Amino acid sequence: MDRIVECVPNFSEGRRTDVVARLVESVESVEGALVLGTHVDTDHNRSVITFVAPPRTAVEAAVRVVARAAELIDLNAHAGQHPRMGACDVLPFVPVRGVGVEECVALAHRAGERIWRELGIPVYFYESAALRPERKNLADVRRGGFELLREEIGTNPERAPDVGESRVHPTAGACIIGVRPLLIAYNVTLNTRDLSVARRIARAVRERDGGLLHLKALGFELESRGVVQVSMNLTSYERTSLHQAFEAVRREAESLGVEVISSEIVGLVPQAALFAAAAHFLKLENYSPDLVLENRIAAALERKKNEGV
Amino acid sequence: MDRIVECVPNFSEGRRTDVVARLVESVESVEGALVLGTHVDTDHNRSVITFVAPPRTAVEAAVRVVARAAELIDLNAHAGQHPRMGACDVLPFVPVRGVGVEECVALAHRAGERIWRELGIPVYFYESAALRPERKNLADVRRGGFELLREEIGTNPERAPDVGESRVHPTAGACIIGVRPLLIAYNVTLNTRDLSVARRIARAVRERDGGLLHLKALGFELESRGVVQVSMNLTSYERTSLHQAFEAVRREAESLGVEVISSEIVGLVPQAALFAAAAHFLKLENYSPDLVLENRIAAALERKKNEGV
Repeated sequence: MDRIVECVPNFSEGRRTDVVARLVESVESVEGALVLGTHVDTDHNRSVITFVAPPRTAVEAAVRVVARAAELIDLNAHAGQHPRMGACDVLPFVPVRGVGVEECVALAHRAGERIWRELGIPVYFYESAALRPERKNLADVRRGGFELLREEIGTNPERAPDVGESRVHPTAGACIIGVRPLLIAYNVTLNTRDLSVARRIARAVRERDGGLLHLKALGFELESRGVVQVSMNLTSYERTSLHQAFEAVRREAESLGVEVISSEIVGLVPQAALFAAAAHFLKLENYSPDLVLENRIAAALERKKNEGV
Repeated sequence: MDRIVECVPNFSEGRRTDVVARLVESVESVEGALVLGTHVDTDHNRSVITFVAPPRTAVEAAVRVVARAAELIDLNAHAGQHPRMGACDVLPFVPVRGVGVEECVALAHRAGERIWRELGIPVYFYESAALRPERKNLADVRRGGFELLREEIGTNPERAPDVGESRVHPTAGACIIGVRPLLIAYNVTLNTRDLSVARRIARAVRERDGGLLHLKALGFELESRGVVQVSMNLTSYERTSLHQAFEAVRREAESLGVEVISSEIVGLVPQAALFAAAAHFLKLENYSPDLVLENRIAAALERKKNEGV
């Protein structure tokens, strides 16, 4: 797969495991779509499927799983603390390899058109796919959830969908489709119990307060371990890298007399981020992806495949 | 490709580029064999082809390229400083993924049987494939080259081949087949012109003189850059890693008041070695190959392929 889009649909169902299994099945019924993982949250009665596919295939698989969710999930019978306004509540497209943000926005819009036309579910676009500035932020779009949207959609022009008529689908609600960057969730653990230290470091390193670009950070306590953590999101790891984030936290920690114990990746990390970190710390002067045996094998396979055509 | 063997045949031809091209062609004529690179050394009149393949395919491609070399190369007309005793002079098999040393030895032996039976070229086995302890070392097997072997093979029992009759192939000589580990060639550059510093560090870090296991090291001068280098071979990177080698050199250098400027990979590096380095320097507490997006995609592809069968 040279061109990869990741799709991370969130569903308003986290208790009936057979329903989640049938959602996964519908993604996998599309040739070329690969489910990488499923996260089922019983407490919130919500689940998340992560799949990858080539661009057009991603749209097909997305539409198919939204259709399956509409068949199997009735929001009128759904309860859970997490805000939601759709059976398939949120549907983010994420550019992973060989695909840019603009192309993903086009895919998101195409998926939205089909979801309205084929399923009668009204669609809102958020983040990079947003058509209105006030819809950039997902939480703003989802305000009040299914129940409030059902009341307001027909009367409040501010809540008119981006695609479709101004009425919710009676059981599947609405679907919020977006494009967001591939992000790395990365935590660095410090040898102190002092939460104010983690918070101070978070402020020093994050973009919002003048730190590193494309870096979000918060300080947290890990009570069970008696330590604190700087919990980060890297929203553009090619520009602000894993190792820059790590080094920035270490530097700030040192200046406060605190040590970095360890770090952890939450979820998945693209190999390029680890290669870049290795190259940085080893001071590799000649690093290029072409030096990696497996990349060379993949390139040779690709070349041979193309010659065969 | 889940199971990968690398094969690195060395040929006694480095000037006639059409001959080298036909050797490459014969490897690629085998379905599933992938040429990763070709190194042609005009000075030594010698060339090296690196290819990978699943285990059985590797044997087929190896036999086919040795046959092609025997057709195209006549040692009686070959001149070059590098010691050699075959048209295809050396044929190492290297376990890369999902294949152990023992299986590679079996492959090497099978290739040897076929090369004698089908091509009439006598075969010697070296390193892990050696059948006699005095043949472990390639240089010992190759002593005196084609010309001396031709004289001695019929009369000196110590030079009898491991497979085949005691006579050289009239134009293709003999073939030396072995199994050696995947090695990483890795150089660390220091900010000094003092060669004795590089030599002293090399002695401190290498296995031979009580340093790190599976590490070979020499000190060299880089005259053009006015610096020196510790040039290393890691013969078992899972046991003595890239980052351990780097850190050992850095430590020794620091103790001599010298700094590491940079490092470089010569040839190829397996991705696992870079992942391990990243995990080490980032102090990743939860690193596993399963965290890497591309590995997860490959695993999902594999799973789907197997379900399809």
